[in-house]
Amino acid sequence: MDVSTFEISVRKTELSRINQLDQDNIQFGKIYSDHMLQAYHENGEWQNAEILPYGNLSMSPATSFFHYGQAIFEGIKAYRDADGKPVIFRPYENWKRFNRSAERLGLPYVPEELFMDGMRKLVDLDSAWVPSKGQTSLYIRPFMMAVDEFIGIKPTTKFLFMIITCPAGPYYDKPVSIYVDDKYVRAFPGGIGYTKAAGNYGASMYPMTEVRKMGYDQILWMDGVEHKYVQEIGTMNVFFVLGDTVVTPELGDTILEGVTRDSVITLLRDKGIKVEERQLSIDEIVAAHEAGELKEAFGTGTAASISSIADLTYKGKKIELPSVENWTVVPSVLQELNAIRYGKQEDRHNWLYRI
Amino acid sequence: MDVSTFEISVRKTELSRINQLDQDNIQFGKIYSDHMLQAYHENGEWQNAEILPYGNLSMSPATSFFHYGQAIFEGIKAYRDADGKPVIFRPYENWKRFNRSAERLGLPYVPEELFMDGMRKLVDLDSAWVPSKGQTSLYIRPFMMAVDEFIGIKPTTKFLFMIITCPAGPYYDKPVSIYVDDKYVRAFPGGIGYTKAAGNYGASMYPMTEVRKMGYDQILWMDGVEHKYVQEIGTMNVFFVLGDTVVTPELGDTILEGVTRDSVITLLRDKGIKVEERQLSIDEIVAAHEAGELKEAFGTGTAASISSIADLTYKGKKIELPSVENWTVVPSVLQELNAIRYGKQEDRHNWLYRI
Repeated sequence: MDVSTFEISVRKTELSRINQLDQDNIQFGKIYSDHMLQAYHENGEWQNAEILPYGNLSMSPATSFFHYGQAIFEGIKAYRDADGKPVIFRPYENWKRFNRSAERLGLPYVPEELFMDGMRKLVDLDSAWVPSKGQTSLYIRPFMMAVDEFIGIKPTTKFLFMIITCPAGPYYDKPVSIYVDDKYVRAFPGGIGYTKAAGNYGASMYPMTEVRKMGYDQILWMDGVEHKYVQEIGTMNVFFVLGDTVVTPELGDTILEGVTRDSVITLLRDKGIKVEERQLSIDEIVAAHEAGELKEAFGTGTAASISSIADLTYKGKKIELPSVENWTVVPSVLQELNAIRYGKQEDRHNWLYRI
Repeated sequence: MDVSTFEISVRKTELSRINQLDQDNIQFGKIYSDHMLQAYHENGEWQNAEILPYGNLSMSPATSFFHYGQAIFEGIKAYRDADGKPVIFRPYENWKRFNRSAERLGLPYVPEELFMDGMRKLVDLDSAWVPSKGQTSLYIRPFMMAVDEFIGIKPTTKFLFMIITCPAGPYYDKPVSIYVDDKYVRAFPGGIGYTKAAGNYGASMYPMTEVRKMGYDQILWMDGVEHKYVQEIGTMNVFFVLGDTVVTPELGDTILEGVTRDSVITLLRDKGIKVEERQLSIDEIVAAHEAGELKEAFGTGTAASISSIADLTYKGKKIELPSVENWTVVPSVLQELNAIRYGKQEDRHNWLYRI
């Protein structure tokens, strides 16, 4: 790849907004960092890659992705290590997944020089925005969409890649109440469920609102063919501790290949805990509960890291999990994951990317 | 509904761009009419509905639908009747379908006073943009999306409804070559296939590009569970003439309830032709072809109206349809549909909406 076809120019803001950030009360998504990255892909190549002051975009109402949803994103976090230096957690995994999403959605490949170097330069320039207090982070949002000014249905030719960032406060693990959905389907074989396509999330808004009205926090999605096998919880991967084994659905084109999912599996195996990636039916979960073998259940994702499940409601019956205070898997893996992220434990898997 | 909560204000352009339109060589989507409609929904109600000069929107890069694809659209056409007056074809059907899409995507209900009156006022103001030469039309694109400036996943609260329009040239029915896809899936029970959600179209870009590389024009999508029953062709509903019966897939949550589909079924039944809306397997189509009973096949949609199918390739075997010159169903129904649209035949079903 000829990397000389683009260079990332930098235009700095004249007035930082950092003093608007209340470090003691960070509200996610309330305020964005001073700068953003944008790069256009046109005539088959990347051009005009630029870091510039965060601000609005001027877009035609005929912009292709407004109508046809050809858009993808990623979510990544930067932390401050023990020395107070910003580190990014496993961004190469997100870069690879971003390009898998891009291919399936008909969007162009984003080279490492744009995605990784762009992110590094952006976080470095806005390093004051990486919060320093306990359990906080800088959320990094790369995204890309088709921006042809054309509303006919045809292969698109103009694309915009961007990165924006915003501070994120500490996440409190309040165990969630789950509704097992057998009406709506999130992903199906031959579809785009394994990608971080915008459309996957928009399609889940209505079902999510419906279950919240019923008093639940999240949906446990089932497979679309047999409505029998568990897939994901809300926008997270899901894990069940059955006896002394941790089980999570195996990857495929209906499951997002979560970076936190992979990190949790790795840490569990490091501890000698057995992890199975396989099909897991709701019937098996119910049977394990009845046998007293369903010990813990949790979701994993960049936003919440690890989210404990308090109960599951399936076909009108509520399964209560054992009290979280007695759990052993979730607390130990979350503690270790945080220790690595914040540089308080050896980064033996080389997960931290230094700015 | 309290319609006094919104009124549609009008701010006219100071300089029309109509002289940029080449009436003899209209390229779809090349140039948009002078005005557009926009209305925001916030704090639970519609407000600030306005017709204003067509132009760019200023949007935050954190705008919700950029990331989560909560967006829908419609496609409608206006024609000039025998007296040269603009008429809109069956817009109430699109209004109803728009609201079905809106509900499933977690977007607000758009009242008739906004959708229909807004469209009428907009087309009336830009009536010079409704082309007058043979088989031309004004394409009308209503669309709506979630525009909260927030990238967390939570129910959205701010929405933008818009209508833009553009002239469309005559459509030439060049019979299309179809690839029967058994790898990618467009729609699935429990999903959003029946809606005009943006995400449905973005997900089809890559498969569409793949089949075009193989030399085909469009994909015939199969059902996602058994890969056995035909669903839609590209972005159109599909019909097969088997012997003396016209068969089209029955509606459900995986099939778009096409307005042209319904119009074609109605006109066929008016002529005494038997139409069946039912499950139709690819095996039945292959068997009918082998028995010499597969007479015609076509797609229907607002953009192309009726699109004849030249051949179907399934599992490496190409089924050639009889020569289009010998077809009777497609030409007669297309002729009648156009006669009604252009006011040359009695509008016995009250399909034309007069401005």
